[in-house]
Amino acid sequence: MVPRYARAAMTDLWTPEARFRVWFEIEAHATDALADLGVVPREAAQALWDWWNAARAASADGQAPIDVAAIDAIEAVTKHDVIAFLTWVSEQVGPQARYLHQGMTSSDVLDTCLAVQLARAADLLIADLDALLEAIKTRALEHKLTPTIGRSHGIHAEPVTFGLKLAQAYAEFARNRERLVAARADIATCAISGAVGTFANIDPAVEAHVAAKMGLSVEPVSTQVIPRDRHAMFFATLGVIASSIERLATEVRHLQRTEVLEAEEYFSPGQKGSSAMPHKRNPVLTENLTGLARMVRGYVTPALENVALWHERDISHSSVERYIGPDATITLDFALARLTGVIEKLVVYPVRMQKNLDRMGGLVHSQRVLLALTQAGVSREDSYRLVQRNAMKVWESDGELSLLELLKADPEVTAALPVEEIEAKFDLGYHFKHVDTIFARVFGTAG
Amino acid sequence: MVPRYARAAMTDLWTPEARFRVWFEIEAHATDALADLGVVPREAAQALWDWWNAARAASADGQAPIDVAAIDAIEAVTKHDVIAFLTWVSEQVGPQARYLHQGMTSSDVLDTCLAVQLARAADLLIADLDALLEAIKTRALEHKLTPTIGRSHGIHAEPVTFGLKLAQAYAEFARNRERLVAARADIATCAISGAVGTFANIDPAVEAHVAAKMGLSVEPVSTQVIPRDRHAMFFATLGVIASSIERLATEVRHLQRTEVLEAEEYFSPGQKGSSAMPHKRNPVLTENLTGLARMVRGYVTPALENVALWHERDISHSSVERYIGPDATITLDFALARLTGVIEKLVVYPVRMQKNLDRMGGLVHSQRVLLALTQAGVSREDSYRLVQRNAMKVWESDGELSLLELLKADPEVTAALPVEEIEAKFDLGYHFKHVDTIFARVFGTAG
Amino acid sequence: MVPRYARAAMTDLWTPEARFRVWFEIEAHATDALADLGVVPREAAQALWDWWNAARAASADGQAPIDVAAIDAIEAVTKHDVIAFLTWVSEQVGPQARYLHQGMTSSDVLDTCLAVQLARAADLLIADLDALLEAIKTRALEHKLTPTIGRSHGIHAEPVTFGLKLAQAYAEFARNRERLVAARADIATCAISGAVGTFANIDPAVEAHVAAKMGLSVEPVSTQVIPRDRHAMFFATLGVIASSIERLATEVRHLQRTEVLEAEEYFSPGQKGSSAMPHKRNPVLTENLTGLARMVRGYVTPALENVALWHERDISHSSVERYIGPDATITLDFALARLTGVIEKLVVYPVRMQKNLDRMGGLVHSQRVLLALTQAGVSREDSYRLVQRNAMKVWESDGELSLLELLKADPEVTAALPVEEIEAKFDLGYHFKHVDTIFARVFGTAG
Amino acid sequence: MVPRYARAAMTDLWTPEARFRVWFEIEAHATDALADLGVVPREAAQALWDWWNAARAASADGQAPIDVAAIDAIEAVTKHDVIAFLTWVSEQVGPQARYLHQGMTSSDVLDTCLAVQLARAADLLIADLDALLEAIKTRALEHKLTPTIGRSHGIHAEPVTFGLKLAQAYAEFARNRERLVAARADIATCAISGAVGTFANIDPAVEAHVAAKMGLSVEPVSTQVIPRDRHAMFFATLGVIASSIERLATEVRHLQRTEVLEAEEYFSPGQKGSSAMPHKRNPVLTENLTGLARMVRGYVTPALENVALWHERDISHSSVERYIGPDATITLDFALARLTGVIEKLVVYPVRMQKNLDRMGGLVHSQRVLLALTQAGVSREDSYRLVQRNAMKVWESDGELSLLELLKADPEVTAALPVEEIEAKFDLGYHFKHVDTIFARVFGTAG
Repeated sequence: MVPRYARAAMTDLWTPEARFRVWFEIEAHATDALADLGVVPREAAQALWDWWNAARAASADGQAPIDVAAIDAIEAVTKHDVIAFLTWVSEQVGPQARYLHQGMTSSDVLDTCLAVQLARAADLLIADLDALLEAIKTRALEHKLTPTIGRSHGIHAEPVTFGLKLAQAYAEFARNRERLVAARADIATCAISGAVGTFANIDPAVEAHVAAKMGLSVEPVSTQVIPRDRHAMFFATLGVIASSIERLATEVRHLQRTEVLEAEEYFSPGQKGSSAMPHKRNPVLTENLTGLARMVRGYVTPALENVALWHERDISHSSVERYIGPDATITLDFALARLTGVIEKLVVYPVRMQKNLDRMGGLVHSQRVLLALTQAGVSREDSYRLVQRNAMKVWESDGELSLLELLKADPEVTAALPVEEIEAKFDLGYHFKHVDTIFARVFGTAG
Repeated sequence: MVPRYARAAMTDLWTPEARFRVWFEIEAHATDALADLGVVPREAAQALWDWWNAARAASADGQAPIDVAAIDAIEAVTKHDVIAFLTWVSEQVGPQARYLHQGMTSSDVLDTCLAVQLARAADLLIADLDALLEAIKTRALEHKLTPTIGRSHGIHAEPVTFGLKLAQAYAEFARNRERLVAARADIATCAISGAVGTFANIDPAVEAHVAAKMGLSVEPVSTQVIPRDRHAMFFATLGVIASSIERLATEVRHLQRTEVLEAEEYFSPGQKGSSAMPHKRNPVLTENLTGLARMVRGYVTPALENVALWHERDISHSSVERYIGPDATITLDFALARLTGVIEKLVVYPVRMQKNLDRMGGLVHSQRVLLALTQAGVSREDSYRLVQRNAMKVWESDGELSLLELLKADPEVTAALPVEEIEAKFDLGYHFKHVDTIFARVFGTAG
Repeated sequence: MVPRYARAAMTDLWTPEARFRVWFEIEAHATDALADLGVVPREAAQALWDWWNAARAASADGQAPIDVAAIDAIEAVTKHDVIAFLTWVSEQVGPQARYLHQGMTSSDVLDTCLAVQLARAADLLIADLDALLEAIKTRALEHKLTPTIGRSHGIHAEPVTFGLKLAQAYAEFARNRERLVAARADIATCAISGAVGTFANIDPAVEAHVAAKMGLSVEPVSTQVIPRDRHAMFFATLGVIASSIERLATEVRHLQRTEVLEAEEYFSPGQKGSSAMPHKRNPVLTENLTGLARMVRGYVTPALENVALWHERDISHSSVERYIGPDATITLDFALARLTGVIEKLVVYPVRMQKNLDRMGGLVHSQRVLLALTQAGVSREDSYRLVQRNAMKVWESDGELSLLELLKADPEVTAALPVEEIEAKFDLGYHFKHVDTIFARVFGTAG
Repeated sequence: MVPRYARAAMTDLWTPEARFRVWFEIEAHATDALADLGVVPREAAQALWDWWNAARAASADGQAPIDVAAIDAIEAVTKHDVIAFLTWVSEQVGPQARYLHQGMTSSDVLDTCLAVQLARAADLLIADLDALLEAIKTRALEHKLTPTIGRSHGIHAEPVTFGLKLAQAYAEFARNRERLVAARADIATCAISGAVGTFANIDPAVEAHVAAKMGLSVEPVSTQVIPRDRHAMFFATLGVIASSIERLATEVRHLQRTEVLEAEEYFSPGQKGSSAMPHKRNPVLTENLTGLARMVRGYVTPALENVALWHERDISHSSVERYIGPDATITLDFALARLTGVIEKLVVYPVRMQKNLDRMGGLVHSQRVLLALTQAGVSREDSYRLVQRNAMKVWESDGELSLLELLKADPEVTAALPVEEIEAKFDLGYHFKHVDTIFARVFGTAG
């Protein structure tokens, strides 16, 4: 975790305190269920909650205080984190705590806790996506009909609108939202099934109770651990979202290039672009997002490698998850929020867009002429040749010559197409007649 | 593609002939729709199908013959594959073919074709998963109550059944099937939207028609290309499935180890395990699957890197997809089929499983004694100490000593637990009382 | 392997025929050494070479013909490739062949063969790098003093020369050459050490003899297999080289953008840029290289995962290497050659470079003024403020205003710096005074 | 960074304080060089060092105190870290500080600082490797002739010694040490070349001076930034080392399996293996190392993706390096130290090794018999058949039958080989006759 790329709500999920609180809740709910089954005394369960509620009531922020240092000190001896935690809880609660963790194994707590943390992290990320979608939609509607050049291979192609660029991004992130909802469901499962998943020493009813209380579904079959294909799918999904962030960030970086300058990241008054060159305004936020995307993607492979645990489990996945659990979710949360800010405040230059659109001397209309020639009965090959020979002259003049004028002066062209028909092919509005259709597909309304 | 790791049905999807046939279908359906709209003459569309149907009728296998070498020769000049193909088709069909590809751009054909190929590949993979699930289920039911030792960290833990191991694998691959169905839907979209996705020169009705005919949904917003987050999600899903293959393969490899030998890959009569050591029977299929899983996982990152294309498109994704389109699907198809064969023919040794289960002198029952002591009023810490001091003796004897006998001889233990109660804790059946529950969760029936 | 991204010299290394020929050489040299040691009859070794030499003499291309289909047919029964090959050789050579492979294990042949193939592949790649370096150097010297704008963050910064851009690329690929030479040495080792690497049944002298004959060094300690950290390092090195290819390709893609157009990939007369837009010239070669770089990088992780084989060996690495051995080397060979062609034929537009350099109204000289102010005694903060307030006006005018004129009209500036000193800061040559120094560092001579 | 997987010496390199101290040193040395050149007053340089030395003298630990919070507060306004730092230094040093950073650009400081940090990190890692090599060597010599079974595919093959296993690991880590030394040289370069690397406003002599003072070499050609192929190579090398760690860790995990138990991680008195199963001793350290290896490998691809920066630089690499700079080096440092501890304290069970070696009824000697039969004139195919039919009986008896006895009772075998010759083939020492050779190759001495 890099503090400068972290936001509080997400990092709070991953503190030791937060983890130990989830552990407590899991253990206490399990003890409730064990009391229901008559396995442990009701008072044992009650004692846990009594301590918990009293501790919460006595604390300033309504959260039960956790003495992480004390637990760490116990772990330094036992070299086992759950035993250290249970020992500490016992010290707080007293003798009734001996019924805690009955028939359970450490992973019952650890894996269910991770499910809770990842589900909560997913909730934050889904909210992030909602905010981003909202920002993109607002700007898309604003620029629904702002003409700009469409580019393939970085080369001017045909006109689009800036709203269409954003509509594409909207659709992409809407898909990502759906994927994340599915991935959240994939990891939000509870396993309280004992040492090798047989429920030998713990009734499945305990698992069902804890699952319900913690907002999880029941893991159908566990083997001490929750199977890691679930987590692999989750982190792979984050990797896809990160790649979409990179795509939109790359678009902004291109638009802000000196020669293009069709849009710019917002540049606040006090900000300095360069220690050496005072005129510079750099797309540093989107370049940063490009790097952050690399990191979130980098966490995918370790998550995939975590799947093939040995037999009923080995613990190799654990260290990986101590990194990527926080790092992937915190980084992605930050990146989504940063991207949302970039889009919300993006400074768009429609005048420059029009200027760029015009700079190629009308080459962007070449295809329409090509089609018109074909429809006028010229063979495809000849049409292509006729258009290309004029287009190449414009290209080589760097936009000084006009394609329209050249075509009008080409007798082979005018022999097939009357001048007024050629002129009609240079109408910009023609390209935007289906923008409403596309907006209706993407936003459910044409705006 | 490595021929030895390829099966015909999948490789057939990726031949040049297969690709050109899909191209033709897309172009011909599009021409139909253009004729419906009155953009091109009905006869132009008809001429395409007439040639196609005549060619199919005249061919031995009912497939229209494609002269790949001729198309390649044209591409060598034009350096553009779609133009080369269209030129070749024109040569076959005659002058009516000049209406072909009206208002379309190459990517309309290429991306829609890739969607068709990936959807068909996904169908084969789903069928592969179905076969694998069937194989796993059969063996799971067969060994539902075959006792075997559960291991965490490679160390004996508590008893499970071999059927439970397979039930876990079944649930995992059932999840993978669901993920693949979702990933298939993600990539099965059709885009016929022109040079920058505005439908400037082609009506959206063409796209709708081609989509329906090719079994695809309509891409809501494209930018010459179908957005690559879809493909990234698809290949990431294949990477997760590959990781699950590695998990099950690793299990078999472990079980076949000389010292464990609880199961073995089927070893056919003519087969030789080693050129030097005639006694060897190696788990070479599952080792091979481990390697194949690495490859399919290796294709995930390039697919993720393909997402951030420049502006409306660049063509950097194309070379990547020429590799991973075939390589990932062909390899995964082969791997799933190989794994299915391994599971179907797996030689299982229940006697050896029981022998291994017994070799630790009853240590696998230690937890039950621990719990019984706790419930008899001994503190958790003392219970742990009492069990551990006896368990350690058994451990150090390498299973020569019996935990049951030691416990019965430990006065501190017998002071808390009567001997018959201790003995009752060493019952194997106790561990399997919830196997039905788990099977019902996984298979919808307890068997 | 994708045929369109493959060149013959490299693919020839990876054919079954080529592999079997290397196998034969290894086996025959080993038999020679065994004969020297008196382990097998001299005639047995001689018989091998007699057949080999006769077969070569009888063949049109001087290569011993290998009947791959026959060997495959034997493998279909034995399920073991080396045994299949030995059986086939025995059929060719006759009874003397029974001494073949004495005390050896399959991996002795397979791993040594892979070392030979990778070393030969490395030799081709080193030659590719040499050709690329030569091409870059030629163009760098040609454009040593061609002024162009340097850009950080895609924003105009200060002047550089086009030769400097290429000098950077030269230095980078020169480093890559060095790395590849080291990686080649890492994988070029021979192991003939028997079933578990103890030389129990084969004398180390055999290994030494084969190593010398095949141009390899001796593997100090093998365990049936050559350790895979060597191969991991090799493929990781290819991944670094691929990333450098992506860097230079990205530079060309940027330079060819419509708005920049400072350089262009060569566009041959017959070539068509787009089926729809006849005016387009797209940087498709460098976009393609970007994708190929993703693939070569994608092979790094499987190679790293291959390192942790179980005990003395498992065969999981083998399938991975059947893919990445050919795919990584063939793709990189093609990419290096393609990049060399791009650089050799790159169309450079110095006039456009100058035009772009001038388009910012002299902002590129802002830092020099900043420094001059500081040296004239103005505080750093004030200097920055003075320059920035004028720079921002130029920036907002899109280069219509001139920084020089504005500074000369700013009394706070002229109070600190005389007008002629301000003017002197706008000299382009000033920026190039150390180009010779840099060229001397990179090329060993200033040109 | 995960605190539990971090050691102080390495984390200290990556604190903000440490970074700012390196920044100061770079800036102050540069100012010295500028004073030498007469660009800035000598007193300006002196003022910097005066403050620095006074601050160090006044501090408890001899380090100049850095007020990170104050610098961060300035950065919150300027949004530029180097400017924030320079502003803070100016506040400390006074007016002379206005000569600081003359003609330099932020990256001159940042990239040179990163080079210093990575070089120092590499030094720690090289020391880690030395300690690990020492530990492995000690145990290798101790167990040079401890017989143990060699396994391929997890199946018993032929005898090796435990020392040989360790010798292999030694050779592998010795190679890794060499690679790391090369990678360190690759990243240890200094660039002080100004805004786009032309030295327009700073003389190359400054770079040379700073490089010498900071223990770096001079970057031949930089472009504001040091080229990232250097860093890619560095992190790729760490990924290879991590993979070797995984290999040795996996070996220990296998050896500690219940059924194998030839070696065990040291288990300290207070340690608890499982909260539920008191008898368990799990190889948790090596499982943990397996996970840590996945993380270090996961950082390779982001480093490779960092190479292709846009034009003279973009800042996308920076966020990546804020993660992987510390995370990769801290994790690898911890992992190497943990592995060293595992090896040093590894509990080795030679008795169990012998027991396992014997458990296959002598099958491990089968190859020698095969060779003897061949040399006695039996065809290779017949020899194989004779040995295999007896070997298979032993195999199926699970080691109850003895291969030696069966062979002696097989008339076809004894017809070719006298009984005493068969018996001689079952000598264990035979396998170890070249151990000295291998040790001499690896350690430079046979021990």
